[in-house]
Amino acid sequence: MIMHALMRELREEATSKIVLLVADGLGGLPLEPGGKTELESARTANLDACVREGVCGLSIPVFPGITPGSGPGHLALFGYDPLHYRIGRGVLEALGINFPVGPKDVAVRGNFCTVDDTGLITDRRAGRPTTERCVEMCRQLQQIQVPGVEVFVEPVREHRFVVVFRGDDLGDAVNDTDPQQTGHKPLEAKGADKISERTARIVNQFVAEAGRVLKGNSPTNMVTLRGYARYPKIETMQEVYGLRAAALAVYPMYKGLARLVGMDVVDAGSSLDEQIASLRRVWNDFDFFFLHYKYTDSTGEDGNFQAKVESIERLDAAVPNIRALNPDVLIVTGDHSTPSKLRSHSWHPVPVLLWSKTCRPDPVTEFGESYCLRGGLGQFQAMYLLPLAMANAGRLGKFGA
Amino acid sequence: MIMHALMRELREEATSKIVLLVADGLGGLPLEPGGKTELESARTANLDACVREGVCGLSIPVFPGITPGSGPGHLALFGYDPLHYRIGRGVLEALGINFPVGPKDVAVRGNFCTVDDTGLITDRRAGRPTTERCVEMCRQLQQIQVPGVEVFVEPVREHRFVVVFRGDDLGDAVNDTDPQQTGHKPLEAKGADKISERTARIVNQFVAEAGRVLKGNSPTNMVTLRGYARYPKIETMQEVYGLRAAALAVYPMYKGLARLVGMDVVDAGSSLDEQIASLRRVWNDFDFFFLHYKYTDSTGEDGNFQAKVESIERLDAAVPNIRALNPDVLIVTGDHSTPSKLRSHSWHPVPVLLWSKTCRPDPVTEFGESYCLRGGLGQFQAMYLLPLAMANAGRLGKFGA
Repeated sequence: MIMHALMRELREEATSKIVLLVADGLGGLPLEPGGKTELESARTANLDACVREGVCGLSIPVFPGITPGSGPGHLALFGYDPLHYRIGRGVLEALGINFPVGPKDVAVRGNFCTVDDTGLITDRRAGRPTTERCVEMCRQLQQIQVPGVEVFVEPVREHRFVVVFRGDDLGDAVNDTDPQQTGHKPLEAKGADKISERTARIVNQFVAEAGRVLKGNSPTNMVTLRGYARYPKIETMQEVYGLRAAALAVYPMYKGLARLVGMDVVDAGSSLDEQIASLRRVWNDFDFFFLHYKYTDSTGEDGNFQAKVESIERLDAAVPNIRALNPDVLIVTGDHSTPSKLRSHSWHPVPVLLWSKTCRPDPVTEFGESYCLRGGLGQFQAMYLLPLAMANAGRLGKFGA
Repeated sequence: MIMHALMRELREEATSKIVLLVADGLGGLPLEPGGKTELESARTANLDACVREGVCGLSIPVFPGITPGSGPGHLALFGYDPLHYRIGRGVLEALGINFPVGPKDVAVRGNFCTVDDTGLITDRRAGRPTTERCVEMCRQLQQIQVPGVEVFVEPVREHRFVVVFRGDDLGDAVNDTDPQQTGHKPLEAKGADKISERTARIVNQFVAEAGRVLKGNSPTNMVTLRGYARYPKIETMQEVYGLRAAALAVYPMYKGLARLVGMDVVDAGSSLDEQIASLRRVWNDFDFFFLHYKYTDSTGEDGNFQAKVESIERLDAAVPNIRALNPDVLIVTGDHSTPSKLRSHSWHPVPVLLWSKTCRPDPVTEFGESYCLRGGLGQFQAMYLLPLAMANAGRLGKFGA
């Protein structure tokens, strides 16, 4: 990847500190034409103060029209091309339950299902069992041993769980075993290449054992597996950018995503105040700090415009405590938009604020989607934000003589 | 192509309707600094109403500075990278005269020329014959038979005609036979690869026969051939985007371009009113509708600023009839700029208006080049317009988990 090659070539040692504050799903939409977005509606005096001294813009996580999941959204902000580095469903599920997935792992999403006496699926989600039952059934599955690999089974919730196969030479080009309709047996797993054929044999052994172990536990008496994913090969931020990077996140998935790019995951408690207390504690140990704030996304997913506005105002209130640490570069942005109007992630560009002593200030005076349109950063691919941060932190030398 | 791979992966079924209204050569220039462009001068109350609820921007057909022909301009709007998919001159000429060029064809542009008794060219354009004479001479050439292929000869105008060779294993890496100066014989055709060598032999046979057939018809007594082009291999919009696409165009070339990407070419009459009547008639049969409006380009090519303004106003008057069909996404743009000041296609970015219920409205209130500069779409590569349309139509799923 040419951007990474250039970063390795140009990066320079420095003592500067970069803070990346990710308000998940920050971008929004007005409820009606002519109205304001959530961010534009929020009172954000502290962010606006940064905006007046800083430079704004809008980032496009992947390319125009593409709605990213959390994986590609964050990879882009961490300075990785999300089209080049793909994180499979299984790995993301494992990260989401804080399973320490590693380089020898193939992670898979599992579903409990119901089969009749002849093995035909009668309910693909086993009647949506309680999470308690999911935990109990996973305990049954944890007894299963398959020669040649370690097997881990962990509950997610309701009918969902994660299986991780750990061993040498495992592939992830294996078909889903869910036939996608009732009245059929679970499909046999087959591998599309040599290492995946080996994995498929292991999967079939595991599923056969699961059938035996769960027999008599109807409706949760069988499993299907899908979303096989090897641990992705990703150079660390230290290797590419020369940054000692720390993650201060509350939710497991974001800790996991940070770990994928080699960040140190710092114990950051369970609230923004605790995250900032942790930030203060580890301030001298790292160069780059990723703070993740979930509530701008979850309120958007809930379709609660006002709650999203309030979550932004709570974030704004924390900004002075971050600035008090005197970072050289402070970035506030999102990994994607989550307009409460749409109740989901969306493709709309994401507001970006970059504050540093060396940025070129622009005429923007308030933080918001339509104001950022006039910002000095323009609209740009999100993966270029980290090179910009590096430049503003005095960590990039000149390209060419 | 990674964009197409992603579209195939993410596209979802929906019942939404997308209308792409292409005002050919829409972008313009003011006649003097400080003045308004054609679009800015036009009274466009209906388009402006869409602008206020929609999102605007400027598209760059290929990359900055590149003036596209109609082929690359439209391919980009149809969601194809115009640098990746090239349509040769011969095929474009054939499309322009409504010749049904197909996958086994090599299409070639021909010129009548004048040779003396020794075969040396004395006029490369045969004294620019009338189109009537061109038709008559083509009738002579239609007698020619070459073993192993079908040969079609069709007049264009003046000294220009099209030859199509239809057969298996034909190549288009064949040199032009026009020596580019008088006093020389037409060049022998040679092929750069095996299938093109076969084509070159066929071309030489055809040219030799043409010399015999036209002998005594001075000044149109010989031909040169150039711009050999195989029918391009292009995945259809149905294959890439999952869209059932219809073209409603008046002029043959645009019907042909639409056919290249697999659109159904609907009989659309010969005026905008008839096109919209056809649109109404086939509304339930398709997902995507390409309406082509020629007069913004032809008036620009004529250098007639006022006529271009009026052609835009006539287009504006038709907009309510399109909106009455209740499309989910309405896009109004051009395939390139044709400033009447320059009397030609140009490289200037092209105004874009995208209206949908899920777009993020921007502060733009009027349709025009300088207003679009402040638009929410920013400046972007034209090939991303279709992914954006897909997103706004609820036809794209999330990328990554």
